[in-house]
Amino acid sequence: MRAKDAEALRATAASAVIVPLAIETAAMPVIRVRDPYLAAALIHNYLLETPFLATGVHAQAHVGDDTVVPEQISIAPLAVIGNRVRFGQRVTIEAGVVIGDDVQIGDDTRILANVTVRHNCLIGCRVCIHPGAVIGSDGYGYATDNRGYHVKRPQVGIVQIDDDVEIGANVCIDRATFGKTWVKSGTKIDNLVQVAHNVVIGENCLLVSQVGIAGSSTLGRNVVLGGQVGVAGHINLEDGVMASAQSGIVKNQARGLVIGGTPTMPMIKFARVVAALAKLPAMVTELRRLRQEVAGLQGEKKEIISKEQDRV
Amino acid sequence: MRAKDAEALRATAASAVIVPLAIETAAMPVIRVRDPYLAAALIHNYLLETPFLATGVHAQAHVGDDTVVPEQISIAPLAVIGNRVRFGQRVTIEAGVVIGDDVQIGDDTRILANVTVRHNCLIGCRVCIHPGAVIGSDGYGYATDNRGYHVKRPQVGIVQIDDDVEIGANVCIDRATFGKTWVKSGTKIDNLVQVAHNVVIGENCLLVSQVGIAGSSTLGRNVVLGGQVGVAGHINLEDGVMASAQSGIVKNQARGLVIGGTPTMPMIKFARVVAALAKLPAMVTELRRLRQEVAGLQGEKKEIISKEQDRV
Amino acid sequence: MRAKDAEALRATAASAVIVPLAIETAAMPVIRVRDPYLAAALIHNYLLETPFLATGVHAQAHVGDDTVVPEQISIAPLAVIGNRVRFGQRVTIEAGVVIGDDVQIGDDTRILANVTVRHNCLIGCRVCIHPGAVIGSDGYGYATDNRGYHVKRPQVGIVQIDDDVEIGANVCIDRATFGKTWVKSGTKIDNLVQVAHNVVIGENCLLVSQVGIAGSSTLGRNVVLGGQVGVAGHINLEDGVMASAQSGIVKNQARGLVIGGTPTMPMIKFARVVAALAKLPAMVTELRRLRQEVAGLQGEKKEIISKEQDRV
Repeated sequence: MRAKDAEALRATAASAVIVPLAIETAAMPVIRVRDPYLAAALIHNYLLETPFLATGVHAQAHVGDDTVVPEQISIAPLAVIGNRVRFGQRVTIEAGVVIGDDVQIGDDTRILANVTVRHNCLIGCRVCIHPGAVIGSDGYGYATDNRGYHVKRPQVGIVQIDDDVEIGANVCIDRATFGKTWVKSGTKIDNLVQVAHNVVIGENCLLVSQVGIAGSSTLGRNVVLGGQVGVAGHINLEDGVMASAQSGIVKNQARGLVIGGTPTMPMIKFARVVAALAKLPAMVTELRRLRQEVAGLQGEKKEIISKEQDRV
Repeated sequence: MRAKDAEALRATAASAVIVPLAIETAAMPVIRVRDPYLAAALIHNYLLETPFLATGVHAQAHVGDDTVVPEQISIAPLAVIGNRVRFGQRVTIEAGVVIGDDVQIGDDTRILANVTVRHNCLIGCRVCIHPGAVIGSDGYGYATDNRGYHVKRPQVGIVQIDDDVEIGANVCIDRATFGKTWVKSGTKIDNLVQVAHNVVIGENCLLVSQVGIAGSSTLGRNVVLGGQVGVAGHINLEDGVMASAQSGIVKNQARGLVIGGTPTMPMIKFARVVAALAKLPAMVTELRRLRQEVAGLQGEKKEIISKEQDRV
Repeated sequence: MRAKDAEALRATAASAVIVPLAIETAAMPVIRVRDPYLAAALIHNYLLETPFLATGVHAQAHVGDDTVVPEQISIAPLAVIGNRVRFGQRVTIEAGVVIGDDVQIGDDTRILANVTVRHNCLIGCRVCIHPGAVIGSDGYGYATDNRGYHVKRPQVGIVQIDDDVEIGANVCIDRATFGKTWVKSGTKIDNLVQVAHNVVIGENCLLVSQVGIAGSSTLGRNVVLGGQVGVAGHINLEDGVMASAQSGIVKNQARGLVIGGTPTMPMIKFARVVAALAKLPAMVTELRRLRQEVAGLQGEKKEIISKEQDRV
């Protein structure tokens, strides 16, 4: 342990601390773990766990026809539930939520304030959707006629959200043209992300805030996209691809590639390009100078040759 | 028809198919059209058409004073309509929608869940506004005093949305400082787009997801902006300008230009710059090598000249 | 005054005009001020001022337990207020707003339609939050285990918004993991901006639309970020830093720096790089040509030397 860390440890009022396996200290009780960050998250979650509190359907909520509401549910005031909605156990629906007709929602899922889930969408178990998110709005698809008018293509598919997905505030996930837009289990989506129609996002992906994924692209497992990354349509990102913030992905990316830039290149190359970019104005000057010097050499060379010839 | 396509055609269970004019096949009944994509959209829309179902004003909705509600209307539970709102025929207002005072809404327009339309805004006919969109929030305008405090400039204009416009989920269109922010007929706006105060967007434009247009810029007809494009303030994009995803437009663009990059350049040039960028690190090395070689040549040239002089 | 401006002045029907100190004209009554733009804003605000109109709590709103509602308040229909919420004087809550438990809201603050403020957050005086904004959603923090599953880190902090802050439509400000995400007084945030957990934004900053600030970054006073700017996590921007639109800030920035590009560099340098970028394809060609010419010179030099040697 570094002296500074030992100092910080002594200063804390904690009666025990979680430390990496390598740490040996007698200063206070320690819990040695392989990954303290992960252990702290698991322990914190455990301590915060509270049993589900079913408050039923509030009198100021609205529930549509043929929607069966289980006993173990909490529907807040001013939530609106459509017709034929099917709920799992221990679902929480906060105020201002609007659920369309024929939606299915799995066990222990929480749909927070002012979220909209449109008709026919499927939401898994232990999903959390943060305020203002919109699930199942129409995909953006038009056919343009020869006068330049855009004719809407009907968007008759759905959105399917699998188990343990978390969806950030004001995220938009569009329904498919046909079939489904699909977010697979364990994926975590940050605020203000756009997922277009017919996109498929694999298991355990991380999409940081303001990412945009265009239509019909597919992501494998554990893909990580930094903030404000854009993915073009009909692109395939294989398992484990990682893209740095603000990059623009316009081509398929092979398994595990780490990429950056617009359009993207391998991260190592991107770092070199960025370093070289700073030198670009100096390169313009240097190139001009070289041109003059080479021209000079060519002139003098001609002179030398002509002198040679004179002599000969 | 390519063999692969013919194969796919035989595999389908369709009793007839829509094909381009050039296709001749006897495998099954065909409808030959100039643009199958467009024809499919038109036919699909026709098949899905349903008569408007007027459900009236739900008991759990709220309608303000002096708002006359026509017979042919559907206002869902937990929608809130302000005072003196004027409705056309066959308007649909979904749950959670909030319409401000003095708004006008044209025939056959659909305003979906949790949309906000603020006071005085004008919405045309056959408009569709997707969930969570905000029409008529204040423009972002401040005057900064000499202590660095920002004094808000009142935003007393409106937003006008013309006929046949579609507005995506969680889009924001700010009201004008004075006058109006204006989206003209037939324009389609994707999710999470920002349209600032006093922007004018021409007919039949396409703004893909997460586009941002700063204050007072104007777009002509049939302008197409790719995902995450940014347009600076007070810029004019003439008819038919197309910008590729993530580009940053900081200057006026002439009619029909196809552009890319930040700041933008003509697309052909941008493609060349992108190709050259990948070579940039190698160029740094090459330039250094050339410098050495030219220095070498200059040294040797001096040597030669001095030898010449010796001889003379 | 330029002749054109004098002409425009004569054309107006105004009975008086606000002009800069330097202007001398007898054409009509003038108010001479140091900053006409600022003066116009102050005067316009003064003219628009209306006394607060307390409408109380609408019968179709919902107010939770132990929330004391002062006489001077307006809570619209279909707003939902949690338990133990504390209101200042003259607060406006529009329709569709959802306020969580234990929130505090200061005097003269306006929370517009469909905004969500989650539990425990603190909102100052004279704050305005535009429609669809989400204050206090969970920060985006996970610990990933060795199978690639993401374990959520509980987000138990709050958001604190100080006095005179304005927050745009559909903005997201996440609550802190521990402690608080903090927006200090006088800062103005445009639409669709993302502020991640534990970010601290100093006084009187301007964040233009679609800016994204990653976790734990801090901004000093009067920082200005152009549209679509991204700030990486754990970055410190000192007072007065200004970044041009779409730039990507990945390092600390010293007081008053004006920057641009991804990753950012000083603006003057960025302008030079941008100018040089346009020349990049030509540079590739030029470099190839120089290489050939230098090779030519080297060949001829060898020739000369060999001739020299022949002679010797």
